[in-house]
Amino acid sequence: ILARTLGELAAQFGCELIGDPAVSVSGVATLANAGDGDLSFFANRNYRRDLQSTRASVVVACASDADECPVAVLLSDDPYMIYARVAHLLHPEPVVTAGVHESACIVASAKLANGVHVSANASICEDTVIGENVVIGPGAVIGPRCWIGDDTKILANVTLVRDTTLGKRCIVHSGAVLGGDGFGNAMSESGWVKVPQVGCLRIGDDVEIGSNTTIDRGAIDDTVLGNGVRVDNLVQIGHNVRVGDHTAIAAQAGVAGSAIIGQRCKIAGQTGIVGHISICDDVIVGGATMISKDIDQPGFYTGSFPGEADREWKRKVARFRRLGELVDRVRALEEAVKDDN
Amino acid sequence: ILARTLGELAAQFGCELIGDPAVSVSGVATLANAGDGDLSFFANRNYRRDLQSTRASVVVACASDADECPVAVLLSDDPYMIYARVAHLLHPEPVVTAGVHESACIVASAKLANGVHVSANASICEDTVIGENVVIGPGAVIGPRCWIGDDTKILANVTLVRDTTLGKRCIVHSGAVLGGDGFGNAMSESGWVKVPQVGCLRIGDDVEIGSNTTIDRGAIDDTVLGNGVRVDNLVQIGHNVRVGDHTAIAAQAGVAGSAIIGQRCKIAGQTGIVGHISICDDVIVGGATMISKDIDQPGFYTGSFPGEADREWKRKVARFRRLGELVDRVRALEEAVKDDN
Amino acid sequence: ILARTLGELAAQFGCELIGDPAVSVSGVATLANAGDGDLSFFANRNYRRDLQSTRASVVVACASDADECPVAVLLSDDPYMIYARVAHLLHPEPVVTAGVHESACIVASAKLANGVHVSANASICEDTVIGENVVIGPGAVIGPRCWIGDDTKILANVTLVRDTTLGKRCIVHSGAVLGGDGFGNAMSESGWVKVPQVGCLRIGDDVEIGSNTTIDRGAIDDTVLGNGVRVDNLVQIGHNVRVGDHTAIAAQAGVAGSAIIGQRCKIAGQTGIVGHISICDDVIVGGATMISKDIDQPGFYTGSFPGEADREWKRKVARFRRLGELVDRVRALEEAVKDDN
Repeated sequence: ILARTLGELAAQFGCELIGDPAVSVSGVATLANAGDGDLSFFANRNYRRDLQSTRASVVVACASDADECPVAVLLSDDPYMIYARVAHLLHPEPVVTAGVHESACIVASAKLANGVHVSANASICEDTVIGENVVIGPGAVIGPRCWIGDDTKILANVTLVRDTTLGKRCIVHSGAVLGGDGFGNAMSESGWVKVPQVGCLRIGDDVEIGSNTTIDRGAIDDTVLGNGVRVDNLVQIGHNVRVGDHTAIAAQAGVAGSAIIGQRCKIAGQTGIVGHISICDDVIVGGATMISKDIDQPGFYTGSFPGEADREWKRKVARFRRLGELVDRVRALEEAVKDDN
Repeated sequence: ILARTLGELAAQFGCELIGDPAVSVSGVATLANAGDGDLSFFANRNYRRDLQSTRASVVVACASDADECPVAVLLSDDPYMIYARVAHLLHPEPVVTAGVHESACIVASAKLANGVHVSANASICEDTVIGENVVIGPGAVIGPRCWIGDDTKILANVTLVRDTTLGKRCIVHSGAVLGGDGFGNAMSESGWVKVPQVGCLRIGDDVEIGSNTTIDRGAIDDTVLGNGVRVDNLVQIGHNVRVGDHTAIAAQAGVAGSAIIGQRCKIAGQTGIVGHISICDDVIVGGATMISKDIDQPGFYTGSFPGEADREWKRKVARFRRLGELVDRVRALEEAVKDDN
Repeated sequence: ILARTLGELAAQFGCELIGDPAVSVSGVATLANAGDGDLSFFANRNYRRDLQSTRASVVVACASDADECPVAVLLSDDPYMIYARVAHLLHPEPVVTAGVHESACIVASAKLANGVHVSANASICEDTVIGENVVIGPGAVIGPRCWIGDDTKILANVTLVRDTTLGKRCIVHSGAVLGGDGFGNAMSESGWVKVPQVGCLRIGDDVEIGSNTTIDRGAIDDTVLGNGVRVDNLVQIGHNVRVGDHTAIAAQAGVAGSAIIGQRCKIAGQTGIVGHISICDDVIVGGATMISKDIDQPGFYTGSFPGEADREWKRKVARFRRLGELVDRVRALEEAVKDDN
């Protein structure tokens, strides 16, 4: 078990400590479930009651919330960030030993750098290059002409279809499919003709891709994700999309072909971004919103209705459907009042 | 071929039979396609014409519908349930023989109970425990520190990433990813910092998880699904979500982190439930609805608009966008009428 | 490198050429990135500037746009189609050699025709029949009682669960799950009872299925996709759905059980189609639309709102929520004006 004293943590992260520096913590927990030896944090006001009754050994919190905390406090303007860094200390990633499992299938033309770990039943195809200390999970398939940067982790049952470049220190979660054919079809008299997808997929450093997410390679040019991008589970990113550095895209969002998303954007879950549009840097999009036009001003954009009791909602929809009738009635009133005067 | 006489079925399921008890059935079919030897059922009024012209040997139906049925009837207040039970009798699951395929990779520290079947190219990782008669499909990966209860079936190419507990008699369909990292990121000056995901995923007994669905394990506490939960395909369940017993979640729905869903809820397809909210027991949510606040009363909740002819819809949206102008016009009218009086 | 002269292309595709027939092209590129030796095309007016400044060797374009093109032009009424056909010429699919990888697991009762390629760690189960020149990718699992037509390609980590028929010349992209159990549950007093899914999945010729898409087999009758159907990534198609020939369904759309979709329909991304409804031929559905009723007239159907700046959107939603109040005010005005006259 790894442990740190509160004094060590205060010094390492530059936080003021209210409490006994000799106390030590060896794990992290939520305010509600923390006990002796646990560090917790307070960053969401919904959990104020949990703060007031927590049994954690120490809580990371803003100075303005410290009074409500019944236990020791590490003061920070960004408690979640300090929490994240302490969690890395106390719960380090397991060390993976280098080596190729005997059941893995690696073609002769693939090149593996030092320290690579290839798990059971993984496949690595022709002309693929794997960087140092890369981990390839069980059942993962790395197709032809891929390039994977140092220290990247490919989890179980991931597929890199072909012609896909991944930077350093990336994490690709299980079941993700990177570099598949985009949805390119031209209609002929006898039906759809498949449009060859001849571009690549290029992903920067420090990128994380969620489970069962799909990112297609380019139709002609490449699909490109910048450095530090975060993509959640079950996200679809179409061919020729470009995503700027440090943009985060939450679960089940979809980005249609050739859309361009700037840097540091935050795209909430189930959002749809239509093809061939451009979104500037520092845009935040709320959940289940459809973005159908260019956005050229940073800011917060939304477009969904909150659900409510079915009877109430149905009434609202009925009024919405009769809005034209209401407009007519207002016009008639305007005429009547005008005639009257 | 397994077969049952109508008399046997009537006795076994406690149904009144209108028809010849000596007739036997050996399969199930829809009203429209059934023929001699088939049992069908009537539970959806859309198919009334099919009932009136069916050639099934027997139909399970409510007493009030029996008159319209031209063939034998097994009376039940819940025809679909009786149908389901008969279908189990006539189409039993194939028996799977115990054994480990020679291409499966099982680490020494994994423990397999009696009767386990491990298919081709499956992987089972360290410190994992597999209960009696469990079936692990081809290409499935069971990561470290997982625990799988007796009689559970894991289908082909499923991934249990790590630290995942599955109860007894569960079914996990192909491509599902259970126990992956949640989407936890804290923004620093140099970009996103990954927040370690140290919780587990715990799933109860008799749970069924659909194809390519993703369920993340907890960030700090655990993600928990109760007993008898049903999850359809391509559903996303975020970290620290809790789902109560016997709740059903349909395809492509998404549940964001730390949301709590009660027991016996029915969440329709493409619905989104935002994070950190709480939904009480016995709530039904309609399709493509976004639930953004706590629900503390059982009932039916909706929030989506039905699509319609594009020209009509565009008119409605245009009126919706000019609603502020209409409000201003009504206010002006009110002033005019008031002045008038 | 394959190359074609402009004269050869003009002759092969019946296009008029404005330019030097002796010039040759060996690749395709976008208008913006094309250089010497590249063919490009102009089909989307958003890229007019790129047309005017392109350095391609030749552009496929409509006659009406030719004047704006600074380089050679191949005239066509359907530039995208000609582009697609040239791209096939210049970027042919790699030839796959026949053979079964030594790590693939094929049961004795499976039948493989001539020319089949089975990749590393693939599994083929009992009573399955594989046609000529079929390619099975690494880690793919072909379950029991499947039938795959000639020249079909199954990519890496695909699962055909069971009882699935695929026609000739199909492509199934990585991670797709075909023929899984539908979501069939009947509620009993003690919880959900699984309804056995006894139907099959039948897919026609020349069909393409996207990455991580899920298509369930039938509950009783079969789920059926016609010839030439195109399905994008992360699409859900429920049990007993029928999709007509040459219909295209874009990413993250969902089709609930027993829905019927006609021929040549185009269903945009994130669209939801509810169960047990019927959509006629030649229907186009816009993005993120929910279709909840039968459609019996060809045409364009939509139902989503475009997102906008959050403050503006919130105002609109607030007005929408107070629409009942506005209706009351209009009614009061009507009474006042009537009384007045």
